[in-house]
Amino acid sequence: MLDGLFKPRSVAIVGASNNPLSIGHIIIQNLVDHDFKGPIYPINPKSKVIKSFKTYPSVGDVPDEIDLVNISIKNSLVPSVLEDCGKKGVKFAIVHTAGFKEVGEEGLALEKQIVEIAHKHGMRIYGPNSQGIQNSDPSVSVYANFTFVPMTPGSISIIAQSGGVGETLKLELHRIGMGIRMYSSFGNEADVSMNEIIDYFGQDEETKAIMLHIETLKDPAGFLEVASRVTKKKPILALKTGKTSEGVAAVASHTGSLLEQDTLSDAIFEKSGVMRFHSQQEMIEAAIAFSTQPIPKSENIVIVTNTGGPAIIAVDECISSGLKLAKLSPDTAKALGELLFSEAIVSNPVDVIATAGAKEYGGAVELLLKDPNIDSLILNFVTPPFVDCEAVAHKLAEIGATAEKPIICIVLTIEEKFGKVIRLIRESGIPVYDFPESASKALTALIKYGQILRRETPEYLEHKADKNKAAEIINRYRGQDRFLPQADVFELLQCYGIPTVKSVRIDTKDDLKAESQKLKYPLVLKVDAEEVVHKSDAGGVCLNLEDEASLLAAFDEMASKFKEHKPGFILQEHLAAATEVIMGAKANAGLGPMLMFGLGGVFVETLKDVQFRLAPLSQQDANGMISSIKGYPILQGARGKKPADIDKLAETLIRLSQLCSDFPEIDEMDLNPVFAFEEGKGVSVVDARLKVANTG
Amino acid sequence: MLDGLFKPRSVAIVGASNNPLSIGHIIIQNLVDHDFKGPIYPINPKSKVIKSFKTYPSVGDVPDEIDLVNISIKNSLVPSVLEDCGKKGVKFAIVHTAGFKEVGEEGLALEKQIVEIAHKHGMRIYGPNSQGIQNSDPSVSVYANFTFVPMTPGSISIIAQSGGVGETLKLELHRIGMGIRMYSSFGNEADVSMNEIIDYFGQDEETKAIMLHIETLKDPAGFLEVASRVTKKKPILALKTGKTSEGVAAVASHTGSLLEQDTLSDAIFEKSGVMRFHSQQEMIEAAIAFSTQPIPKSENIVIVTNTGGPAIIAVDECISSGLKLAKLSPDTAKALGELLFSEAIVSNPVDVIATAGAKEYGGAVELLLKDPNIDSLILNFVTPPFVDCEAVAHKLAEIGATAEKPIICIVLTIEEKFGKVIRLIRESGIPVYDFPESASKALTALIKYGQILRRETPEYLEHKADKNKAAEIINRYRGQDRFLPQADVFELLQCYGIPTVKSVRIDTKDDLKAESQKLKYPLVLKVDAEEVVHKSDAGGVCLNLEDEASLLAAFDEMASKFKEHKPGFILQEHLAAATEVIMGAKANAGLGPMLMFGLGGVFVETLKDVQFRLAPLSQQDANGMISSIKGYPILQGARGKKPADIDKLAETLIRLSQLCSDFPEIDEMDLNPVFAFEEGKGVSVVDARLKVANTG
Repeated sequence: MLDGLFKPRSVAIVGASNNPLSIGHIIIQNLVDHDFKGPIYPINPKSKVIKSFKTYPSVGDVPDEIDLVNISIKNSLVPSVLEDCGKKGVKFAIVHTAGFKEVGEEGLALEKQIVEIAHKHGMRIYGPNSQGIQNSDPSVSVYANFTFVPMTPGSISIIAQSGGVGETLKLELHRIGMGIRMYSSFGNEADVSMNEIIDYFGQDEETKAIMLHIETLKDPAGFLEVASRVTKKKPILALKTGKTSEGVAAVASHTGSLLEQDTLSDAIFEKSGVMRFHSQQEMIEAAIAFSTQPIPKSENIVIVTNTGGPAIIAVDECISSGLKLAKLSPDTAKALGELLFSEAIVSNPVDVIATAGAKEYGGAVELLLKDPNIDSLILNFVTPPFVDCEAVAHKLAEIGATAEKPIICIVLTIEEKFGKVIRLIRESGIPVYDFPESASKALTALIKYGQILRRETPEYLEHKADKNKAAEIINRYRGQDRFLPQADVFELLQCYGIPTVKSVRIDTKDDLKAESQKLKYPLVLKVDAEEVVHKSDAGGVCLNLEDEASLLAAFDEMASKFKEHKPGFILQEHLAAATEVIMGAKANAGLGPMLMFGLGGVFVETLKDVQFRLAPLSQQDANGMISSIKGYPILQGARGKKPADIDKLAETLIRLSQLCSDFPEIDEMDLNPVFAFEEGKGVSVVDARLKVANTG
Repeated sequence: MLDGLFKPRSVAIVGASNNPLSIGHIIIQNLVDHDFKGPIYPINPKSKVIKSFKTYPSVGDVPDEIDLVNISIKNSLVPSVLEDCGKKGVKFAIVHTAGFKEVGEEGLALEKQIVEIAHKHGMRIYGPNSQGIQNSDPSVSVYANFTFVPMTPGSISIIAQSGGVGETLKLELHRIGMGIRMYSSFGNEADVSMNEIIDYFGQDEETKAIMLHIETLKDPAGFLEVASRVTKKKPILALKTGKTSEGVAAVASHTGSLLEQDTLSDAIFEKSGVMRFHSQQEMIEAAIAFSTQPIPKSENIVIVTNTGGPAIIAVDECISSGLKLAKLSPDTAKALGELLFSEAIVSNPVDVIATAGAKEYGGAVELLLKDPNIDSLILNFVTPPFVDCEAVAHKLAEIGATAEKPIICIVLTIEEKFGKVIRLIRESGIPVYDFPESASKALTALIKYGQILRRETPEYLEHKADKNKAAEIINRYRGQDRFLPQADVFELLQCYGIPTVKSVRIDTKDDLKAESQKLKYPLVLKVDAEEVVHKSDAGGVCLNLEDEASLLAAFDEMASKFKEHKPGFILQEHLAAATEVIMGAKANAGLGPMLMFGLGGVFVETLKDVQFRLAPLSQQDANGMISSIKGYPILQGARGKKPADIDKLAETLIRLSQLCSDFPEIDEMDLNPVFAFEEGKGVSVVDARLKVANTG
C-alpha cells in the first residue's frame, strides 16, 4: 500500500532552507500554497525557523510521527539521513537527489546501499533522482514536488517516467482549467516501482483515467499483469517515447534492444488493453473525455453542427478512425424534420444551420440521445452573432448533466466574448474542444476503450503435445547457444502437432539413395550445416529434382561446394505451390515469448507487413494476428485464388505459442516458409531454424 | 486586380439596419470596430441614420464613389440592387445572401443572372453565399465580413472555401495572439474565383504564408497554374476536406468522382508545390513558423533542451518526419563543453540541464547558430523555479531578432507566472509552442518547403514519336466510347517507342498456324473480344504453350468457350519471368492526364501501393513515382535478385505521358502487366487496355 506516500499524514523536508531557489524551500512553498492537511517539519541543523515553521536539526528530533520525508541533499549524505529516517519509523522517503544509478557504477552502488538501509527499517524509497508526488484529494492535498504547475482537484491521474513530460501533461490540463487527481514522476525506480503506482492509482475510486509516460519498462511482466487488471476498471493511456533509433539513443545506449523493446511494448499494450498514443496533446484530449463521459456502447455516432465545413472535417476524421455514422431511426428523422428550420439537413451530420437557437439545437440533441441507433454524439457549435448562444449553452449543459451517452463538443468562438458559453458546457461535464479533429480523436479513444472492455474472454486452447519427447530434444542442446539441425527442429514441431514437410536427414550418398526410395518425387535437397545460415543465398538448396539422376547430380555438386563444412543434407518432398507465410518466436526475459506472423518473402522483408503478439496466444490473438496484416486479403483469396487455410494457420500459431511457452529456453525460432494450402488442406512447415539459449 | 475588393476606398452596405442581429448591422459594426479607413455608406430606404451614419435609400443616392458594396438582402432582390450598383460604377459586390446555385436549378439561374448584370457594367461579384473579406493592412483595415473574430495585423493570409473552417483558423491565431494579413471566404465562386484570390495574395508583399481550405477545386488547371507560380515565392498550406467517402457525401453527392478528386488534388498539390495538411492545428502551427522564420537550407537540425523527456519526443517526431540530427562540428562541441555545466550533455540533443541560465542556454544557442553543420534549431525550455527565466528569454529574444537560421521554441510553463517569458521570445519573432510534437511538425513544414524551393528545374524530354500514325489509329475509334483491340493499342504504344511483346491478332485457325511459324515458342494465346474485359478470370488466357499441338488445342477450347462473342485472338510470345508492374493513365477535364505506377498483382489490388502524377511527367516526376512506392526495394533487387531496369521504366512512363498528353481523347489506359527485365534489358508491355472518350 502506498498510502503513506500519496496520503501522508505528515511530511518532513530534509534539505529545507530559506533559499527560495532551493528544492527544499520550493517543496515547502508548494505544500503551503496547496494547503497540505498535515503538519510540515523542515529539517535543517543550521536554521531554527524556515518559512515560519519550527525547524528541527534532524528527523529524529521531530516529536511526532512522520509518514513521508522529502530528501534533496547531496547524494553522499543520503545514506545517513535514511538511517535516521528508518530509526524514526518514517514510512516513505522521496529522494529527489540525483547522482545515483544514472551516473554509473559508483552511483549504482550508492543506490543499492540506500535501498538496503530503507528495507532494513521497513521503509520504502521513492526515486532517487525523482521529481515527486502530488495528490489533490481535498482531505490530503499534498504537493511533495518541486515543480510549478498549480494543482486543483480533478479525476485524471498522471504517472510519468520523465518529469519534463509529466510537467507538460499537467500544464495542458491546467491551461484549459482542468484539475488532476494524483501525480507521480518516480525517477530511478530503485524501490517503489511504476507498476506499484499504476496498481495504486488503479484502485483509487476517484481516478477515472490514468495517463502514463514510459521510456523503458523496468519490469515488463509486472506491467502486463498490473495493467491487464487496471484496464478492466479504467483506461490507461500511454505515451512510449524513444521510438526511433535516434530517440532511443537519447534515452540510453542500447539501441538494438530498446528498439526491440518498442515492438515489445506494443505487444504488451495490446495484450493488457493499454491504449498507446503518439502525441501528448491527443493523449490529454482523450483523457479529458474519459474523465467525465461514459464509454460508448458501439461505433455508431452522430454529428450535430450549425456550420458545414468543420463537420466535414469531423466526418473525415471519425470515418478514417473506424467509427460509423449512425443511420437516424425514422422516428428521429421525422421529429427532427418537424423541429428544425426548413433549410436544416436531417441526415448525419445533422446540420441545424447557423440560425438554430436553444430550442432547435438543444431539441435536436435531445432527440438524437434517445435514438437507439446512436451511441455517442459530437456537437459542433460556432457562436453566431445573431443567436442567443448562452441560451444554447444552458440547454446543452442541462442535457449534458444527465445524458447517459457520451457527448463531445467543439465550440468555435472567442473566449473574450463567449467564454461563458464554453464554461457553461464544460461545467456540465461535456468536454469542449477547439478543433473537430481533436474532438473526433477523443471520441475515437472512448470508443476504442469500449472495444477493449467488450473483448471476448480470451479462449486458450491446450493442444495435446508430447512434452517429454520435446524436452529430450531440447535438453540435447541446452547451454550450447546454437541452432539445431533441421531434423531435430522438425521433430520438435511434430511433438506439438505442427505439420512439417516429409523430410529426412542424410549424410552419405548411400543414405540418399536409400531414403529417396521412401519419398515421392519431385524432391528437394538442402545443405544442413550450422555455418550455412542463409542456405538459399549460398546455393545450398536444389528444388524440384524430378528423378534420381538429377538428385544424385545435385548431391555431388553440393557435397563438393560445401566440403569444408563437412555438411549433412536434408532431403524432402517438393510441395505444390501454396501461399508462403512466415512464423517466428523470440524469448523475452521475464515475459512469455513474442510470436510473429506475416506473409513470406518480400512482404516481410520489404514491406515489413508483420504482426507481433505475446504468448500465450488465445484463439482471438491468433485470429487477430492473421487478420491484421495488410496482406490479409491475399490469404482470403485475392485475384480469383481460393482462400488459404486460415484456421490451420491460427492453430499452428497457437501450437507454436504453446511450444515456446513450455520451453522458455527456446531463444528464437523462425518457420520460414510455412506453406498455407487451400482452405481445408492444412499447412506445412518447409524450413525452420531454432536456437536454444545459452542459459536456462 | 482585386484592389477594389481587398483595398476598398469606400464601402456601402445594402441590407444595413438598426437590428443588431442583422448581417448588415454586424458588418457596419465590424468596419467601425476595426477603424476602416474609408467612408461607410449604409443603404436602407426606410432609415435615415444607422449607427450614426447618414443612410441612403439606394446606392445611386450616395454622392461619392463606391468601390465595394456588401449585399445581404433577400435573394430575389439582388438583381435589381446589382443594376443600381452597376450604374453607380461600383467595382465589387460581395453577395452574402444565400439561395443561389447551392439550392438547385432556380438558384443557379439567378446566379447566372447576377453575374451577367455585373459583367454588363464591368463590375465583379464576390459570392454569392459568401462570408466576406478582411484586410488588416493598417492603411485599409477593412472587415467586410459578418463574423466575430477580432482582426489584428499579421502576415498570414487565409482563403477558406468553408466559412466555418476559415473561422476556426482565425480563432486559433487570435487565441495565441497572432494577427492575420488578409482573409477570404468566397462562397459560390460565381465570378471572382479562388484562383484569382490566391494569385492576389501571392502578389501581396506582406503575406508571408497562405493557408487554404478547399472542399472542391472548381478550376483545377487554373489552380495548378497559379499555385505553381505562388509557391515559388511563398508557401501555400492547404487543407483539403471531404477525404473519406462519407466526408465527400457531406460535401456533395457525386461520391465517386469526388473521391477521385482527392487523389487528383494530391497530384496537383505535388506538382504545384502546395503543402497538404491533414489537421487544421498542424497547418496553423506551421503557418506561424512560416510567418517569421527563414527557410532552412537543409534537413540538419539541432535540439537544445534543459529537460530530457520532451527532447526525446522532439527527436522521435523529427526523425520520423525525415529530418536529421546534425553532428556538431568539433569546434562547437569543444566550445559548448567549456561553456556548459559539467552535467550537461554535449551531443544532439544538447542538454544544457535545468540549472542553465541565460549565459549557458543563450550561449549554447549562439554557438550552435554558427555551426555550419546545423541549419535550424529547436529550443525546448522548461521554466525551472530556480533559474532567472526572464533573463533566458531576454537572451533568446536578442538572438532571435537577428538569427539567420530558423529557430523554433517550446516553452513549458504557466502563463500566469511566466507569461512574460513567452511574450519576450514571441515578440522577437521566434514562434513558441506548447508541445515538442507541434514545434517539430512546424519545423518539418519549413524544411519540406525548403525542399520544394530547391527542387531541380524539371527536365522534360521529348521523345521521338510517330504522331501522325498514332492520330490515324485513334481517329478510327473517336467518338465510339469503347476499348480498342489490343493490336491497335500495341501499335499506338509502338508509335511512341513503348516496347510491347511480339504479338499478332488472328481470327482463324489458318491464321494461327501461319502466324505461329513466325514466332518463338513458348507462346501465349488470349481471347480478344470487347465483351471479355477480365480475360484471365474468364479463362481467356493460355500461357506457356510449348508446341503447335498444345497451341491448336488451346485455340479449339477457347473458340468454343467464347463462341457467342465471335472473338478474335491474340497470339504472343511468352516472355521469361520478370518483375510485373502496372502503368495507367486517366484523362482529367481541363488538366493533363494523371499517370499511375505500381507493382503488379496483389501490390496494386490488395496493398494499393501505387503512385499518381500529373502529365507532363518530367524525368524527376517519373523517377519520383517509381521510387516512392513502398515496394521500391523489390525493383532495386530485394532478396538477392538483380535490380529491374528502372531507367527504362521511367522512360516508359514519360513516353506514356507524352502519348496521353498528345491525345487528350485517350480517356483511360491500363498497361497491365508491364514486364520489367533486369537492369539494361528493358521492359515490355504484355497486356494493354485503352478507351477513347465519347467526346472530343
